[in-house]
Amino acid sequence: EWTSPPLDAALVDKPGLGKAIIGRGAVNQKGPESAFLAALHAIKGANKKMPVNLVMVAEGEEEIGSPHIAQIVHKPEVQAALAKTMGVFMPSSMQDLDGIVTLSLGAKGVVELELVSTGEKWGRGPGKDIHSSLKAMVDSPAWHLVKALNTLVSEDGNEIAIDNYPKPRPISDEEKKMIADGAKIRSEAQAKKQMSVQHWINDLPWEQANIRLESQPTANIEGLVGGYTGPGGKTVLPHKAVAKMDFRLVPDMKAADVVPAIKAHLAKRGFGDIEVNMSGGYDPTQSAASAPLIQAQIAVLKRAGIEPVMWPRNAGSYPGFVFTGEPLKLASGHFGLGHGSGAHAPDEYYVIESTNPKIQGYDGAAMSFVEYLYELGK
Amino acid sequence: EWTSPPLDAALVDKPGLGKAIIGRGAVNQKGPESAFLAALHAIKGANKKMPVNLVMVAEGEEEIGSPHIAQIVHKPEVQAALAKTMGVFMPSSMQDLDGIVTLSLGAKGVVELELVSTGEKWGRGPGKDIHSSLKAMVDSPAWHLVKALNTLVSEDGNEIAIDNYPKPRPISDEEKKMIADGAKIRSEAQAKKQMSVQHWINDLPWEQANIRLESQPTANIEGLVGGYTGPGGKTVLPHKAVAKMDFRLVPDMKAADVVPAIKAHLAKRGFGDIEVNMSGGYDPTQSAASAPLIQAQIAVLKRAGIEPVMWPRNAGSYPGFVFTGEPLKLASGHFGLGHGSGAHAPDEYYVIESTNPKIQGYDGAAMSFVEYLYELGK
Repeated sequence: EWTSPPLDAALVDKPGLGKAIIGRGAVNQKGPESAFLAALHAIKGANKKMPVNLVMVAEGEEEIGSPHIAQIVHKPEVQAALAKTMGVFMPSSMQDLDGIVTLSLGAKGVVELELVSTGEKWGRGPGKDIHSSLKAMVDSPAWHLVKALNTLVSEDGNEIAIDNYPKPRPISDEEKKMIADGAKIRSEAQAKKQMSVQHWINDLPWEQANIRLESQPTANIEGLVGGYTGPGGKTVLPHKAVAKMDFRLVPDMKAADVVPAIKAHLAKRGFGDIEVNMSGGYDPTQSAASAPLIQAQIAVLKRAGIEPVMWPRNAGSYPGFVFTGEPLKLASGHFGLGHGSGAHAPDEYYVIESTNPKIQGYDGAAMSFVEYLYELGK
Repeated sequence: EWTSPPLDAALVDKPGLGKAIIGRGAVNQKGPESAFLAALHAIKGANKKMPVNLVMVAEGEEEIGSPHIAQIVHKPEVQAALAKTMGVFMPSSMQDLDGIVTLSLGAKGVVELELVSTGEKWGRGPGKDIHSSLKAMVDSPAWHLVKALNTLVSEDGNEIAIDNYPKPRPISDEEKKMIADGAKIRSEAQAKKQMSVQHWINDLPWEQANIRLESQPTANIEGLVGGYTGPGGKTVLPHKAVAKMDFRLVPDMKAADVVPAIKAHLAKRGFGDIEVNMSGGYDPTQSAASAPLIQAQIAVLKRAGIEPVMWPRNAGSYPGFVFTGEPLKLASGHFGLGHGSGAHAPDEYYVIESTNPKIQGYDGAAMSFVEYLYELGK
C-alpha cells in the first residue's frame, strides 16, 4: 500500500502541497522532531544564547501505552527538576490542509483491555474447540461473552452502562464556547468524508457531535476474536472468545477505577469468570489555556497570521497525565507549524518544501520552534 | 500435528488397536469406501451373483454443504430410479474403542450462515476502520452486532429466542427409550473427558443431557471476527463485524424457514441492516427403525455378536434429507464394522489389522459389507 518503500524516506511531489518526505514515522514523530533539532542548531549556528533552559526527554514507549514513563518522571530527583519548569511540549506539525491549527489543551485518558471468556475459567462449556453439534448439551463461552458485552452499553451501543463507572465532570461553558467556535471553522463535510460516516451518533448536528466527542467517555470494541475466523464457516463450538476493547476517559475520570468497576459489574451479573486483562492505560491530560506554555504558542501562531482553533482536548490519548497530574500539575502540549499526515499508516508524509502559501515547510517548521523558544524566554 | 505426513498413508502400530493407516480421509471416507469396494471384488472373485442390484452414487461436495446433490437426485429419471430402491447407505466404520456400534436413525439438519454488520449497510458507523477515539461521536457496527446477537438466545445462551422460529416435534417415547438405553451403555466420564467438559447444560444428568442432544435445535457461534484480531490491541473502531453461526435442526424443522425467521426477528428489533448470508444447509434426516435397510443392519450386527445402541439421530448433519424427505421417503444410513477416528483432524486413522478382538480390521469390515448385501437380498 506504500507508493515508495516505508524506510526509503523518498522525497516526492505531492500535488497542492509541494515536496514531501514519505516514510514510516515521517510525521509521527521524526519530521517535527528533526525540525526542532534544526531550530536548536540554527540558534547555535547564529551564535545566539538559548533563550530558555531545555531538558530533552526521549520516550520510546508511547505507542505501547508508555508503561514506564511515570516511573521515570516520579523519581524524586527527576520530579524535583521538572517541578521548576514551565511545562512540557512535544514537536508536532499542527497545520491542516487549510493551514488551520487546532490547539488542544489536553487529551483523553484511555484503558485498553481484553475480555476473555473461556470454558476452562467458566467451568462450563468445553476446554477446547469441539464439534458444533454438541451445542445441544454443552454451554458456549462465545455466547457467554456476547451476553456479558451486552450488559456494558445501552441498546444503541453509545452509553456506558457499567455499574459505578467513573463519571466525567460536566463540560464547562469555556469548553462549550471553544467547541462552538471550532465547529464553525472545521468542515463537517470533510470530516464525514474522511471517516466514511453518514450520521453522527443520535443524528447530532456538527456542533453537538463535537460536544459529544469532547465531553463523553467511550466503551469501544476494537476487535472480536473467537472460534473459526477464516473464510466461510467451520462447525466448531469454540472454547474461547475475546473482545478487545478500549475505554476513553475525560476529566475527572481515573484509569485505575475502570477495571474494578467492570469486574464488579460483570461479577454481579454472573460473568465473574470472564477475565478482564488490562494491557495499558492512563488518566486524561489537561492544561489551562492561561498557562504561559500555551499562551506562548498562541502568540507565535498569531504572529504567523494564524488564529488557532482552541480545543478542549484531543479525543485520542497520550500519557501527558504524568506531567499535568498530581503532584507536578505542569502544562503540556504539542506545538509546531508545518503539515503531515498518515501517522501509523501507508504513505505517511511530512511536507519539506511547501508550495501552498498557507502551509509551512521544513524551514518554516524549524522557524516556528525558534520563535516559540524565544517567546517562552520572554 | 501429524505424526506422519497426511498424504503418506503410513501404516503404523497403534497400541491396543493394531496396524492402522494414518492419513487425510483415512476413516472419512476412503477407508470404509475401499473396504466396501473390496467386498464387491470378493463377491465377484468368488464367482457369486450379486445378491442385490446396486447403484453407486459419488457425492464429492458433502464437506461444503452438498449444494448440488438435491438437483441431481430430483432429476426425473434419477428420482424415478431411486423410488424403486430399498434405500441408501454410506460405508462407515461404526465400532468405537469398545467395539460397540451406535446405529443412528437419522441426523440433524443444519443451516450455516454469517451475520454481517457493517457501517455501509447500516448507514451508521464508519465505512472503513477509523481511530477508536471517534467512538464518542460515531456509532459502532461491532456493538450493533453484539446487540443483535444478544436477542437471538436466552441469557444462558442455550434457548433459541428467535420469533416464529421453526419448532421441533416433541421427542417420542420410542426415542426416549433409545436414549435411556444408550445412556446406560455409553460412558459419561469418557464423553466429558473427550470434550474437556465439566458440566452439561443446566447441570443435566447424563441421560437428560443426551435427551437434550437428541431433541433440541441449536444456535451456535462458530466464530466471531471483527476489527483488530491480532495479538494485543489496536485503537480502531471497526466498520465491520461478523458472527459465523450454525443452526442444527431436528424433525420437523425446515432449513428453508430458518433465514426468513432470523431476518424478520432482526428487522423487528432494528437490526434489519445486518446481513444474514446463508452459505449452506439442509433439513433433518430420519429413517424408521422398521425399514428393511435398517433391520438388515441390525441382523448383521447381531450375528457378529454386537447389540447395537439404537440412537434417534446423529447430532451432526449429512444431506440424507434428499433421500429420506419428500417425495422419495427412502431409508438412509451408515453401515460397516471396523474402527477409525479423527475425521478432519491430524492423525486421522482407520484400523487395517486389528489386534483387539472387539474391533474388526479391514478384512472384517469388508466381510461386514458382504454380509449386509446378502442380508439386504433376502
